[in-house]
Amino acid sequence: MIPQDTIVALATPSGAGAIAVIRLSGKEAISIAAEVFQSVSGKDISKQRTHTIHLGHIVSEGKIYDQVLLSIFKGPNSYTGEHVVEISCHGSTFIQQQIIQLLLRKGAKMAQAGEFTLRAFLNGKLDLSQAEAVADLIASDNEASHQIAMQQMRGGFSNEIAKLREELLNFASLIELELDFAEEDVEFADRSAFHELLNRIEFVLKRLIDSFAVGNVIKNGIPVAIVGEPNVGKSTLLNALLNEERAIVSDIAGTTRDTIEDELVINGIGFRFIDTAGIRETKDVVESIGIQKTFEKMEQAQVVLFLVDSSQFTADSIENLKIEIEKVKNKYPTKAIVAIINKVDLLSEEDVKSIQEQLSTFDVQLSTIFISAKQKIGIDELKNTLLSFVNTGALRNNETIVTNTRHYDSLLKALEEIQKVKWGLESHLSSDLIAIDIRSALHFFGEITGEVTNDELLGNIFANFCIGK
Amino acid sequence: MIPQDTIVALATPSGAGAIAVIRLSGKEAISIAAEVFQSVSGKDISKQRTHTIHLGHIVSEGKIYDQVLLSIFKGPNSYTGEHVVEISCHGSTFIQQQIIQLLLRKGAKMAQAGEFTLRAFLNGKLDLSQAEAVADLIASDNEASHQIAMQQMRGGFSNEIAKLREELLNFASLIELELDFAEEDVEFADRSAFHELLNRIEFVLKRLIDSFAVGNVIKNGIPVAIVGEPNVGKSTLLNALLNEERAIVSDIAGTTRDTIEDELVINGIGFRFIDTAGIRETKDVVESIGIQKTFEKMEQAQVVLFLVDSSQFTADSIENLKIEIEKVKNKYPTKAIVAIINKVDLLSEEDVKSIQEQLSTFDVQLSTIFISAKQKIGIDELKNTLLSFVNTGALRNNETIVTNTRHYDSLLKALEEIQKVKWGLESHLSSDLIAIDIRSALHFFGEITGEVTNDELLGNIFANFCIGK
Repeated sequence: MIPQDTIVALATPSGAGAIAVIRLSGKEAISIAAEVFQSVSGKDISKQRTHTIHLGHIVSEGKIYDQVLLSIFKGPNSYTGEHVVEISCHGSTFIQQQIIQLLLRKGAKMAQAGEFTLRAFLNGKLDLSQAEAVADLIASDNEASHQIAMQQMRGGFSNEIAKLREELLNFASLIELELDFAEEDVEFADRSAFHELLNRIEFVLKRLIDSFAVGNVIKNGIPVAIVGEPNVGKSTLLNALLNEERAIVSDIAGTTRDTIEDELVINGIGFRFIDTAGIRETKDVVESIGIQKTFEKMEQAQVVLFLVDSSQFTADSIENLKIEIEKVKNKYPTKAIVAIINKVDLLSEEDVKSIQEQLSTFDVQLSTIFISAKQKIGIDELKNTLLSFVNTGALRNNETIVTNTRHYDSLLKALEEIQKVKWGLESHLSSDLIAIDIRSALHFFGEITGEVTNDELLGNIFANFCIGK
Repeated sequence: MIPQDTIVALATPSGAGAIAVIRLSGKEAISIAAEVFQSVSGKDISKQRTHTIHLGHIVSEGKIYDQVLLSIFKGPNSYTGEHVVEISCHGSTFIQQQIIQLLLRKGAKMAQAGEFTLRAFLNGKLDLSQAEAVADLIASDNEASHQIAMQQMRGGFSNEIAKLREELLNFASLIELELDFAEEDVEFADRSAFHELLNRIEFVLKRLIDSFAVGNVIKNGIPVAIVGEPNVGKSTLLNALLNEERAIVSDIAGTTRDTIEDELVINGIGFRFIDTAGIRETKDVVESIGIQKTFEKMEQAQVVLFLVDSSQFTADSIENLKIEIEKVKNKYPTKAIVAIINKVDLLSEEDVKSIQEQLSTFDVQLSTIFISAKQKIGIDELKNTLLSFVNTGALRNNETIVTNTRHYDSLLKALEEIQKVKWGLESHLSSDLIAIDIRSALHFFGEITGEVTNDELLGNIFANFCIGK
C-alpha cells in the first residue's frame, strides 16, 4: 500500500512570483536532490540534519539552472512521513519547469493531485477527515470556513468520532465475548450502561448531523435573492455592505463592483447574492419568461430580499409589493423574506411611520428594515438580520461542525445503526444480532476517519486536491 | 540609507496553491514572528540557529490562523543581509491575507515592489546589475534569456566591468598624483601602458555594446511577420513548429493554438509571430487600410515570412508574389525575407524544380524553403533559417551579453569618455584634463554596478520588480 516512488510537483501557485517551491517526497527524495544540488559551501546535503536549509545551485551536466534554497525534512518528521525536500527557486515558470523536468529525468515521478497528502494519510500522519480538511483549508475564503477546516485538520472532529468509536468498541468486545459463552447465559456488558452510551452516541450524532445545515451554509455561502427594479440601489447596497468589510480586509485590491451577482463575507460568513428582476404581474410574454427565471433563482435562495425605493412609494406600489411578497411566500413558504426600504434619508418621520403601518397590514410575516445604502444608514441592522438566518451559535461555541457531505452520509448511516442497536437492546434481541448492528455502526465511524477505506474512495477524495498538495 | 523597518510580503504567486510563502525581513523579523508563532515542540524560535525550519502554529489572541513551517535566516546570512523569516502556510488567499495582516498589526510594514532585493543591494549582498538580473531571471521564459540572466546574477557582467574599472582607477590615481607634482613635470603613469589599457577597454566596451543587439533579441524575442492568405496553412505551420518543441517541454498544459499571433521558443530563442494579411494591389479603400496596417506590422518585424500554398500556384500568383516581395524589400531594405512554399507533399519533383526556377528570377535576394506544415517536412530547415538571423555565437561561447537598456546607455557613455581620454592622450593633453574624462568614464562604469547611484535611479529599477522579491 505504501508507495515506493519519489514524487515531485510544484507546491506554490503556478505563474510568476518572487519565488516558487518545488516539493519532492519519497525514499529517494534526498538522494535525487543531492544529484542536482551543489551547496555553495561544498556541503554534502545527504549528510545534513533534518529541518535545515542550504543555499546552493541546481546544476546538471555543467548547466546552472538556478540559485536556490533547499530544505531537508527527514522521514518520519515531514508532512508526508517520508523524506521530503523543498526547493525554493526563482519564480519564473521557465525555471520551475526546467527544474521539475530535471528531477523527473533523475528518477522522480510527477505527483498526482493530492498525492503528498494521500501519502501523509497512508503513513499515518493524518487521518482521512484531517486530510480532507487540508483541501478545505486551502479552499477556505472566509473566517468561518477557515475556522472549521482548521479545527477539523487539527483533529477536533476525528477525536470526537474516535472517542465514541472506542467506547462502542469496548461494548462490542464484551458483547462478542458473551457469544463465546452463549450457553452459559452470562452478561459481561452492563445493559444499562450500554443503553446510556447508546443514548449519548445518538445525541452526539444528531448534533453533528444537525450541524451540517450550518456547515454547508458556511462552506458554500448563503444564497440570497435580491428582488428589485434596476434603479432602487442594488449595487449601492452591496457596495455599502462590502465597504464595511473592506475596512477590515484593507489590502484586497480595490475593485469596483458592477454586478450584484457576487459573494460578500459578513462577519466571516459568506453570502451569495443573486440578482432577480421581480415578479410583478404582466401580460407580456417575454416578461413572463423573465418571471419564470426569477422564480428559478428564488428557488436556490435561502433568503429573499425585496429592495424598494421609498422615494417612489405610492399606495399603488405598496399594494404591488404586498401582492409580490404574498406570491413568493405562497410558492416558497419556508424561505425567509426581508423588505428593505431604501432611501430612508429622503423620508420624513411621518413617511416612515406611514410605510410601517401599511407594511404591518401584510398577512405575510416579514422583517422590515429601513436603510440608506448611500448614507450607510441601517446597514448594520441589515447585516444582523442576514446573520440571524445562520445558526452561528455552534461556531461561536467552537463546537464541531460537519461540512463534508461524505461525513454527513456516514453519520446518518451510523445513526441508523445505533438506533437499530438501541431498539434491539430494548427488544431484548440476542447478543449475536446486536453485535452485527454494532459492527455496522463501527464501520461507518471508521469510514469518516479512514480506518475503513478503499482505493476508489481514496481516489475520489484526493482527486479534488490540487497537484503539489 | 539602510532601512530600519521590518517588511513583509507574499513571496509566492498570488492565488490558491498547496502552499504559500510569506517573507519577513528586518531587524525585528524574528521577534515579530516569535510573537505569533507557537512551535509544536515548545521551542523559542528566537533562540534557534540560522537556516533551521520549525513546525508550529500561527496563533494570536487565542485564535489559530494556520499550521505552518517557519524558516529562520539570521543576517547577514540571508537574501537581504538582514534577519529573514519565511512562513510557509497553506495556500488559501484568505489565510495568506490573515497572516500578513496579523504581522502588519505586530509592527511589520508592507514591502514595496522589489524592496527585499533593494535591501540586498543596500546591504552589499548583490551589486546593482546583479539585482537587476534577479528581475530578469524571474521574467525569463526561454533558455537563452534564462542563461544570460543567470550569468549576470552570478556576477559575470559585474566582474568584467569591475576589472576594467579597477585598472582604469589605478591609472586615474597615478595621473591625479602627477597633478600634485605638476610643477615638476613627472609622469607616474606609463603612457604606452595606459594607451594599451584604453585600447583594451575600448575593445571590451565595443563588444559589450554590440552584444546588446543579440541581448535585446533574446530578452524580447525576434519579431517575425507572416504574410499569407487565410488558408495557406499559417496556424498549421505554427503548430508544427510548436509541437516539435512540445516534445521537450512535455508537461505544459496542452492548449490548441487558434491564433497565430503568438510566441514560440525555438532552440531557446523566442520568436514573436505577427499575422499580416499581405499587401496585394487593390482598389478597394477598406482593403488599402488593411495594407497600411500590414506595413505597420512589418515595420516591427525583423524577419518577413511569405507563406504560400503551392497547390494554388499559377504563373499569375508567382508574379503577384514577386511584386509583393519587391515592394516589401523596397520599403524595408534591411529586413530578412523568406519565402515558404507550403504543401510540398502535393508537388511532383518537376513542380518543385519549376517553382525554384521561377523564384530564382526574382531580383530580390531571399531564402526559399519548401515545407509541408501538415506532414512536418522542412520544419527543421525553417527553424535553422530563423535561428540564422540571431547571432547565437556569443551565447554559445558563454560571453557576457548585455540585455539591459540602462547598462547599454552607460556603456555607450563610458565608451565616449574612453575615446575622449584616448584622443586626449594622443593629443598630449594636460593630465588635469585627461583626469576629468577618466573620472567621467569611471562614473559610468559605477552606474552599472551601482557604486554610483541615486534614489531616483534605484526607485525606477526596483519599481519594476514584483512585490515580495
